[in-house]
Amino acid sequence: MNGYVPPARPHPATGAWMPSHPAGSRQFFSFDRPFALEGGATLRDVTLAYETWGTLNADASNAVLLCHAWTGDSHAAGSADAGHSAPGWWEGAVGSGLAIDTDRWFVVCVNVLGGCQGSTGPSSLHPDDGKPYGSRFPVITIRDMVRAQSRVADHLGVRRWHAVVGGSMGGMQVLEWAITFPDRVGSIVPIATCTQASAQQIAWGAIGRRAIRMDPKWRGGDYYDAGPDDGPWEGLATARMVAQVTFRSDNVFTDRFGREIADGATLHDGLDLWQRFEVERYLDYHGDKLVRRFDTNSYLIIGKAMDLHDVGRARGGLLPAMARIDAQALVMGISSDILYPTYQQRQIHDLLLSGGTKSDYVEIESPHGHDAFLIDLDQVGQHLRTFLDRVGA
Amino acid sequence: MNGYVPPARPHPATGAWMPSHPAGSRQFFSFDRPFALEGGATLRDVTLAYETWGTLNADASNAVLLCHAWTGDSHAAGSADAGHSAPGWWEGAVGSGLAIDTDRWFVVCVNVLGGCQGSTGPSSLHPDDGKPYGSRFPVITIRDMVRAQSRVADHLGVRRWHAVVGGSMGGMQVLEWAITFPDRVGSIVPIATCTQASAQQIAWGAIGRRAIRMDPKWRGGDYYDAGPDDGPWEGLATARMVAQVTFRSDNVFTDRFGREIADGATLHDGLDLWQRFEVERYLDYHGDKLVRRFDTNSYLIIGKAMDLHDVGRARGGLLPAMARIDAQALVMGISSDILYPTYQQRQIHDLLLSGGTKSDYVEIESPHGHDAFLIDLDQVGQHLRTFLDRVGA
Repeated sequence: MNGYVPPARPHPATGAWMPSHPAGSRQFFSFDRPFALEGGATLRDVTLAYETWGTLNADASNAVLLCHAWTGDSHAAGSADAGHSAPGWWEGAVGSGLAIDTDRWFVVCVNVLGGCQGSTGPSSLHPDDGKPYGSRFPVITIRDMVRAQSRVADHLGVRRWHAVVGGSMGGMQVLEWAITFPDRVGSIVPIATCTQASAQQIAWGAIGRRAIRMDPKWRGGDYYDAGPDDGPWEGLATARMVAQVTFRSDNVFTDRFGREIADGATLHDGLDLWQRFEVERYLDYHGDKLVRRFDTNSYLIIGKAMDLHDVGRARGGLLPAMARIDAQALVMGISSDILYPTYQQRQIHDLLLSGGTKSDYVEIESPHGHDAFLIDLDQVGQHLRTFLDRVGA
Repeated sequence: MNGYVPPARPHPATGAWMPSHPAGSRQFFSFDRPFALEGGATLRDVTLAYETWGTLNADASNAVLLCHAWTGDSHAAGSADAGHSAPGWWEGAVGSGLAIDTDRWFVVCVNVLGGCQGSTGPSSLHPDDGKPYGSRFPVITIRDMVRAQSRVADHLGVRRWHAVVGGSMGGMQVLEWAITFPDRVGSIVPIATCTQASAQQIAWGAIGRRAIRMDPKWRGGDYYDAGPDDGPWEGLATARMVAQVTFRSDNVFTDRFGREIADGATLHDGLDLWQRFEVERYLDYHGDKLVRRFDTNSYLIIGKAMDLHDVGRARGGLLPAMARIDAQALVMGISSDILYPTYQQRQIHDLLLSGGTKSDYVEIESPHGHDAFLIDLDQVGQHLRTFLDRVGA
């Protein structure tokens, strides 16, 4: 039963970007005043990392905001390099001549508050003692993320976004932007997202929380001074595996992995509890990969923000909240999405129409599940390009 | 971040039934010879616990075998009592005058090999040293379970089952029974099951394995001498939570839990990482409940057997394997099953027809997901009753 040997991982306890690391294409904006959170706490020192592509025009009318998903960051486009452990999450969709054409649009992406790639989050230093926040970092909401981003918009001279675009948690931010700041958002593209997290979505999040809490190396959230090879990787990797399955689809898993055994072994070598199927190796790989570029507490804090997502909270419910939106919308769903099923995007579309907002709904036909918004860039990009052109006319 | 307090659980390290516990309605059959496993190992001492209802008729033609699912056991019908921590898993479907009418049928249910409710499994004592097998227990397969059950059939004087019936892992056994012993099975009712575990099903299993392995109280599988409150509950409960979500459905979770906060709290009390949604409390409850009646190593061993399930293995593939079946079939699928989608049961039905076997396919219309075979007893029972009558004529 004990045949499993974890891979060697001489890595620090967190995959967070640290001020001692190369900045890459990040820029930083530090708030000049404290930031009050929806939950009641106040963060005294807030810095947000962001990246921009293209040039803001004279009347500041060509700005497009991209909002990233759970484990994304400000690096929406560009290579992996010393400052960025992975290529941009929408690389191929954002750039000169691409769907979001940076020759035309001034594109901005901000690492969310609570994140770990340069923005203030649990791995940042607490102003009281210069040690990482760790367990002291407060719970934040999608609304907090969006209100914080609005200060970056002010700093950049963007009074009103031509469009705010994002998938999954990015789409939650898109809705909150348009509801919180109706006069600052010209159009929206919420993709594979929802007006409020469903019970099943919360359930998946709860499992990840429990897995991380179980990892003794998580140390109640205060693990930052743990030595190499002593971080809360098992907990984070297990939580990530749950997400990874819900991000894809039954059919794609069957096509890609079937019942293959990993590492060239066969069942003729004898049956072993830890002999891995190929799909198991794939999940281990993705779990282990995430721990190298992410922070476990950020995963918890951002996941909780998603579970708390409910645009109707303290606004009299969904319809009054959605009726505040004054931005033409393109709503996208993905045919095979099991995590954010298309009924959720059709609900967004219907609520927008009920509130008197112009909205189109399109469905990405893809076998790839929720992650199709990161994979099927041809379809997603084509819809985006057409929409950005049209609402700009 | 540290607000969570686990519930008090003064329980032993395993929820396994032990010989010192009341037998309840269990009977036991101990093999008089060693039992060779498909994986190559041999178990020297094997005992299987089973229960029976009704009376075997003179020509032994009225015997029905029920095969249980992952965390089930031989207690298919009957109350909870000192010997059985839960009522029968098909209570309401098995009994005098019920769908599986014990006035007419001699009904048998055997706790599977590798289980923890009286049959030999990881919590049993190793003949070498009289200590629990723990990490020494070998991997077993669904075929091992079925070949072991055949010895109980011999012992009971059942040469040929009128019907073999089961859902989920029970349905895997149903198929293996009919393929391994075509002349001993008159008819089969595989419910919400598959010919081979899919990549996605294996993926869910892999997450549970990793969660259990992470629990320091699992101790590599050798936790049986741990004191009260020191068992591998967190790992087992987390694994169970994964299963519990896949056993149900998005719609039912939404209807039942929505976004309610547990324990009477509201978000106005402030935002806390560990403040639970109602669905989270429900999953914690079910996870914590399972640890009181199950053994963590049995959960691993049985889960691995399901992942290894492939009726085509070493038989030239699915079609030749299924063509060995010489038993009239009623195949049941569940409309909302996300874990064993109905395409899997239609495949069973199609393969049976291709192999020249008489088969009917029916779909249970239910919002309850995979677990509907344990919940929607009216529909399941009606189909069963009709089928058992018909094939008996």
